Amino acid sequence: METTSNILTINNVWMMICTALVFFMHLGFAFLEIGLTRQKNTINILFKNVFIICVGLLLYCLVGFNLMYPSGFVAGFIPDYFFDLFGLSAPVTDAGLDLTYNEGYTYWTDFLFQGMFAATAATIVSGAVAERIKLPSFMIFVVLYVGIVYPIAGSWKWGGGFLDKLGFYDFAGSTLVHSVGGWAALIAVYLLGARIGKFGSDGKPKAIPGHNIPIAAAGVLILWLGWFGFNGGSVLSADPGATSITLVTTCLAAAAGGVGAFIFSSFLYKNYDLTMFLNGILGGLVGITAGADQMAPTDAILIGLIAGVIIVLGVALVDKLKLDDPVGAIAVHLICGIWGTLAVGIFGAMAGWDQFLIQLAGVGIYGAFCSVSALVILLPIKATMGLRVTKEEEVQGLDIHEHGMDSYPDFRMNQH
Amino acid sequence: METTSNILTINNVWMMICTALVFFMHLGFAFLEIGLTRQKNTINILFKNVFIICVGLLLYCLVGFNLMYPSGFVAGFIPDYFFDLFGLSAPVTDAGLDLTYNEGYTYWTDFLFQGMFAATAATIVSGAVAERIKLPSFMIFVVLYVGIVYPIAGSWKWGGGFLDKLGFYDFAGSTLVHSVGGWAALIAVYLLGARIGKFGSDGKPKAIPGHNIPIAAAGVLILWLGWFGFNGGSVLSADPGATSITLVTTCLAAAAGGVGAFIFSSFLYKNYDLTMFLNGILGGLVGITAGADQMAPTDAILIGLIAGVIIVLGVALVDKLKLDDPVGAIAVHLICGIWGTLAVGIFGAMAGWDQFLIQLAGVGIYGAFCSVSALVILLPIKATMGLRVTKEEEVQGLDIHEHGMDSYPDFRMNQH
Amino acid sequence: METTSNILTINNVWMMICTALVFFMHLGFAFLEIGLTRQKNTINILFKNVFIICVGLLLYCLVGFNLMYPSGFVAGFIPDYFFDLFGLSAPVTDAGLDLTYNEGYTYWTDFLFQGMFAATAATIVSGAVAERIKLPSFMIFVVLYVGIVYPIAGSWKWGGGFLDKLGFYDFAGSTLVHSVGGWAALIAVYLLGARIGKFGSDGKPKAIPGHNIPIAAAGVLILWLGWFGFNGGSVLSADPGATSITLVTTCLAAAAGGVGAFIFSSFLYKNYDLTMFLNGILGGLVGITAGADQMAPTDAILIGLIAGVIIVLGVALVDKLKLDDPVGAIAVHLICGIWGTLAVGIFGAMAGWDQFLIQLAGVGIYGAFCSVSALVILLPIKATMGLRVTKEEEVQGLDIHEHGMDSYPDFRMNQH
Repeated sequence: METTSNILTINNVWMMICTALVFFMHLGFAFLEIGLTRQKNTINILFKNVFIICVGLLLYCLVGFNLMYPSGFVAGFIPDYFFDLFGLSAPVTDAGLDLTYNEGYTYWTDFLFQGMFAATAATIVSGAVAERIKLPSFMIFVVLYVGIVYPIAGSWKWGGGFLDKLGFYDFAGSTLVHSVGGWAALIAVYLLGARIGKFGSDGKPKAIPGHNIPIAAAGVLILWLGWFGFNGGSVLSADPGATSITLVTTCLAAAAGGVGAFIFSSFLYKNYDLTMFLNGILGGLVGITAGADQMAPTDAILIGLIAGVIIVLGVALVDKLKLDDPVGAIAVHLICGIWGTLAVGIFGAMAGWDQFLIQLAGVGIYGAFCSVSALVILLPIKATMGLRVTKEEEVQGLDIHEHGMDSYPDFRMNQH
Repeated sequence: METTSNILTINNVWMMICTALVFFMHLGFAFLEIGLTRQKNTINILFKNVFIICVGLLLYCLVGFNLMYPSGFVAGFIPDYFFDLFGLSAPVTDAGLDLTYNEGYTYWTDFLFQGMFAATAATIVSGAVAERIKLPSFMIFVVLYVGIVYPIAGSWKWGGGFLDKLGFYDFAGSTLVHSVGGWAALIAVYLLGARIGKFGSDGKPKAIPGHNIPIAAAGVLILWLGWFGFNGGSVLSADPGATSITLVTTCLAAAAGGVGAFIFSSFLYKNYDLTMFLNGILGGLVGITAGADQMAPTDAILIGLIAGVIIVLGVALVDKLKLDDPVGAIAVHLICGIWGTLAVGIFGAMAGWDQFLIQLAGVGIYGAFCSVSALVILLPIKATMGLRVTKEEEVQGLDIHEHGMDSYPDFRMNQH
Repeated sequence: METTSNILTINNVWMMICTALVFFMHLGFAFLEIGLTRQKNTINILFKNVFIICVGLLLYCLVGFNLMYPSGFVAGFIPDYFFDLFGLSAPVTDAGLDLTYNEGYTYWTDFLFQGMFAATAATIVSGAVAERIKLPSFMIFVVLYVGIVYPIAGSWKWGGGFLDKLGFYDFAGSTLVHSVGGWAALIAVYLLGARIGKFGSDGKPKAIPGHNIPIAAAGVLILWLGWFGFNGGSVLSADPGATSITLVTTCLAAAAGGVGAFIFSSFLYKNYDLTMFLNGILGGLVGITAGADQMAPTDAILIGLIAGVIIVLGVALVDKLKLDDPVGAIAVHLICGIWGTLAVGIFGAMAGWDQFLIQLAGVGIYGAFCSVSALVILLPIKATMGLRVTKEEEVQGLDIHEHGMDSYPDFRMNQH
């Protein structure tokens, strides 16, 4: 019995560390988004990101956690706690101290780990809509998408809902986190339109270079570090075999994603494109996430390499569709999220035609639900308060207009 | 018996990770201080911060650890090791390998975890006195304050001294770390006077904007991450219930602090002030620190929200008093440290009028001791070598004058 | 038996965390190298670093891991797997889940931890050759040095080879990682020649200041954090006594290294040189690495202080020899790596004349092998494709020429 309690303690230590690492991903997202955009919108981006972490966590406490892990479903897909009183349900004095809750972690660790995931979906959108969205409109979107859409979507699989019963598999969230964010990013980018100057009068895309590439690269490395917790913690215990193979597949897919994007893009475009390399790493990470516990190292390397190629093609496709996604979030999180979800049916322990079709069905159902949800939230906002800042604000920068601050006041800038 | 030794191993792993996280807070402090000040003093600030970490740790090894955890007290408040030979006492070969020392951590982990805390107090002062203090004067202050004042203050509660016996509670250091630093910051700021240009000829405060806001924001997120270790490690074991509820209250208070400061400041000043949001997060973290293991999630959210409001009012108050605190250290660490200490008597498991009075007494005693100690150290320095750089040095920047280096030599700057 | 399996779980958690920390060191190296060089080469440096992580990890999977831990040696020093099929050997389903592999970690954790080390050696070289090496030439060097030289060198000690049998001791890699990188750095710097402008027409060295000192300082603190995993994980279990004393000696040596370099350089040059302070910390870390588990705190402080002095002298020596090492890698990694390896024979539990001579022999053997290997790789590259960019590329910067990108396009720069 002592031994049993030791297991809870060990597992819980691992889960708390993973929680901390997933929290730290928010710095990675912030750095990536800042680095790949212009300095005149830096304060605005930081404000959005800090808002998402804080409000996302509070909402997950007040609403999301119960919604996502309901005791049952109404009409098959509405978590029953939706009609309940909101809020965390366990009293402090009964804080999951024994194994009746779970031997992998306490109630509180469970909440905090999942809460750190919740905010991620909104952060993905943040990057795609950067440099032109109205701050209050974005904040309303975040509250509704993180507070309600994300946990309902999550409940269908991780909360034991109908997709879980169907056999849909998504280990750590290629779909449940990354695509859920990615679909909303796609819709939001479509509704918002491109930044001024992104497409020339000839309709051709023009690069709008990011203002701080070292910070963007640091963001990617911090995200990779965070993925140790994102995937490693999704084992939901410290099981030595399962956690360690998961870290290996995660890191190999990241490495292969970077190398795949680098080689493919240098073959296509005859240069060494750092941004492609970095987004390839992220694509590999997103791609492995759905099946990180199911894959052999060679599977992980293949999934990563393909994700790297997808990134290069995906970024080109988004441009071709005249969508303006400053950080490549649609290619990374939506397209590679889909790729990773399908890869569970192609590679590894669960591979098979049946599983592939179930994965495909999951992709479709989440795509429909998230797209419609994003439209339902964003269209009324667009019709009333508007989604986009004025032309003047966009040209002069959101920092001065919405925040009255300059991110680097001691430095001399080229305005553009 | 095997099982018992496993518990030591688990607990010790957690404590070592927390130690690493608290160490990493020093990067957070450095980034925050740099980001909120002018580029011409960046090298100087980095130098101070790196000096504090290194010298703080060495001093804690040579003096502080024994002082802070004495075998008894002379005259009731002087740790008896003060009169002993200084230095770590355990031989390497007896490195706390069994449970005779403690089942939560080894002797060495104990030293390193507490040593990482020690330097923090001086770092708090560093931010408040930035951009005008003489480096050698500051270094002497650090040696005396970290080497002697901090461990004596700590011994009164964490070393089993009279405030511990009185029932004073300070879980992870709202008072013992943050206010101990905050009082010295207040005294030092008062003795130093404001930076040139901070108060106009009309006496009104003028904002002196920080030169690198992304780095300041990164600093806050790194500090939040570090607080997982600061508070989580203060459980002094990996007890799953106690550690996980502590992380939950810590994160909820941080989130609520940010949101509280954001809403209150946007209500007062009609703008979206990122710096207030960030300092609100820090205020929430400092505010929960004294009782992070005692609070329910709702308590933590309330403590954080109030801390957020306090930050907005506190920053205004410091300005009103014509004190110049470039990073808001007094509002964050002193005022919210006091708030958090008192909150133990208002919210959570220990709430009650009696406890509130004991907490108030603790606040008063530490305030008196730290203020007097800071005066005793700083007044002689001021009278002899001086506290403040010359006007010319201040205007041209400490980097060129004291270090002969430029922090960003490739960039063109606006001098101010 | 349950208890035994708990030990594996605990140990494995610690080793996975250490793996994550060593991974994070790559951000530290990248930041340090960027910060201490000019902005016009920033993209190039980031590209090299990201390439090293990704390719290093993939190579270690395909080749290195088996090479480094062979089942035996051919002719006494060629790992037998060299003639085998390459690749990871354990099937996923047998992922070290029981203790037949090891009670300290699973097969997968072992691979990933060691894989994170492997890339480090090449990163050390990256800093020394910055701002003038041709990217494709560097990439070929990395593939060969990380893929073949590093694991063969490692096998001689950590893989149970002849130096291990001789009694040579290198706990975490003062020689096996840092000097292995350092020797190649020395050779590469010699073959490349100095950057344009580094030595005046009078032959005197001119400082070429780094463009982003805050990022360089952050790099050092991130490296220090990573060293918790680098040394702490080299215990190869979570043994509470051994891990915690190792963290204590590591941190004390780092602190003493910084203080030693600061005091010695301020005595020599009459200024407060932040770069010396930072490199002193790194020197202390490299210096303690060979014997971090063998030393008492006072030993660690002495080793660090001496490493700090060595850094100051070493940087001056490298300049005197007309070698151009932009980040001080030779002084930090090669010279302090040698110092740390010898210190095992001077201080701590293994001190003694016999051990000292064995350590000296190890230094010499690794020096010969690594220097010759680096020459064998680099001379043919130099003779065919060339090692160095054209004068025009070097003056205008590698970012524009090799990557067509600018790292800070919104900022105005001073060209130099």
